[in-house]
Amino acid sequence: VSLYLRQLEAAQRQGLTTITSRRLGSALGINDAQVRKDLAHLGQFGQPGIGYRVDDLTTALRRTLGIDRDWPTALIGLGNLGRALVKYRGFRGRNFHIVSLFDNDARKVGQTHGGLVVQPLETLGDVAREQGLTLAILCIPAEAAQRVADQVVACGITGILNFAPVPLTVPPRVSVVAVDLSVQLEHLAYKVQNAKGGISYAG
Amino acid sequence: VSLYLRQLEAAQRQGLTTITSRRLGSALGINDAQVRKDLAHLGQFGQPGIGYRVDDLTTALRRTLGIDRDWPTALIGLGNLGRALVKYRGFRGRNFHIVSLFDNDARKVGQTHGGLVVQPLETLGDVAREQGLTLAILCIPAEAAQRVADQVVACGITGILNFAPVPLTVPPRVSVVAVDLSVQLEHLAYKVQNAKGGISYAG
Repeated sequence: VSLYLRQLEAAQRQGLTTITSRRLGSALGINDAQVRKDLAHLGQFGQPGIGYRVDDLTTALRRTLGIDRDWPTALIGLGNLGRALVKYRGFRGRNFHIVSLFDNDARKVGQTHGGLVVQPLETLGDVAREQGLTLAILCIPAEAAQRVADQVVACGITGILNFAPVPLTVPPRVSVVAVDLSVQLEHLAYKVQNAKGGISYAG
Repeated sequence: VSLYLRQLEAAQRQGLTTITSRRLGSALGINDAQVRKDLAHLGQFGQPGIGYRVDDLTTALRRTLGIDRDWPTALIGLGNLGRALVKYRGFRGRNFHIVSLFDNDARKVGQTHGGLVVQPLETLGDVAREQGLTLAILCIPAEAAQRVADQVVACGITGILNFAPVPLTVPPRVSVVAVDLSVQLEHLAYKVQNAKGGISYAG
């Protein structure tokens, strides 16, 4: 759904009002039948021979993804990766707002990154309540990840984006998306090895 | 394929010699029929009622992914993200070796990260030939990404992992995997919004 949204946003920028399933599919490397199947359950936004109404379909996709609302997000761990993510421009304009930063390293607490002051991890519970935090991005070493995840869950945050290369155990009501950058490098090696060429979008 | 490999490696660590399609599937959130279908084209590594031979299947998956060979990799752009990736432990033991670092910022050239000295980008062609570079990781700002990608392609590197939040245009023989971290955050929001819970592996 995210990848469709990217294509539709590109179409909007180009000033298109409609887009065909064939065009959407070719940009994503899938056929038009699959596109129609994927988008059918969202509602009637297409007309045979004309295409999808770009604005309406974009709105529906954003609603499905939950990015028509605000997601106040905490970032935990201000190492290199954490600092890079605070500045990551890809997050902008996407309704994910990193509103607070945490670290349990006393040397990092009090530093300012992207206009936010790093707070001690003990304060997560209070800040989560005050700011209505819904998501947490974990940029911490593998050995600390589970302990911090437990703290995050105890604060009522129900979504974790985990960059630590270690699986987390969480209660069933909590969602985790684990980002393993080596999977993406393997996918690239696979494409090169098999001379696939072309561009893939790895989440 | 990467995700199957992760599960098999976990099984190896647990000392298992065989694993059923049901167990593999449940760890990945898919059914056993899909697992058998996915793995069928790799060869005969399973036996009904017993399961897959873990070691043989692991070897086959590694060969398919091209990670039974070495991939000397260049990392370009030593900002926060680049420096985080040099240290990223998830890459270790995976046959991706970051063997050289490049930046076109004179203040960064000469710095040492992870035991490697940052070299000026002009030397990429020479170093690529000497070291047999096959892949490049681009951790550079959006506005410089296409220019640097052109340079990378001109040096004969055929695989690019692109972290810049901008699409690249490359010749058909070149493979690009574009990493868009906001897609993963959207995926997380979607799961939380729809109260999916559970753990997903976003490559």
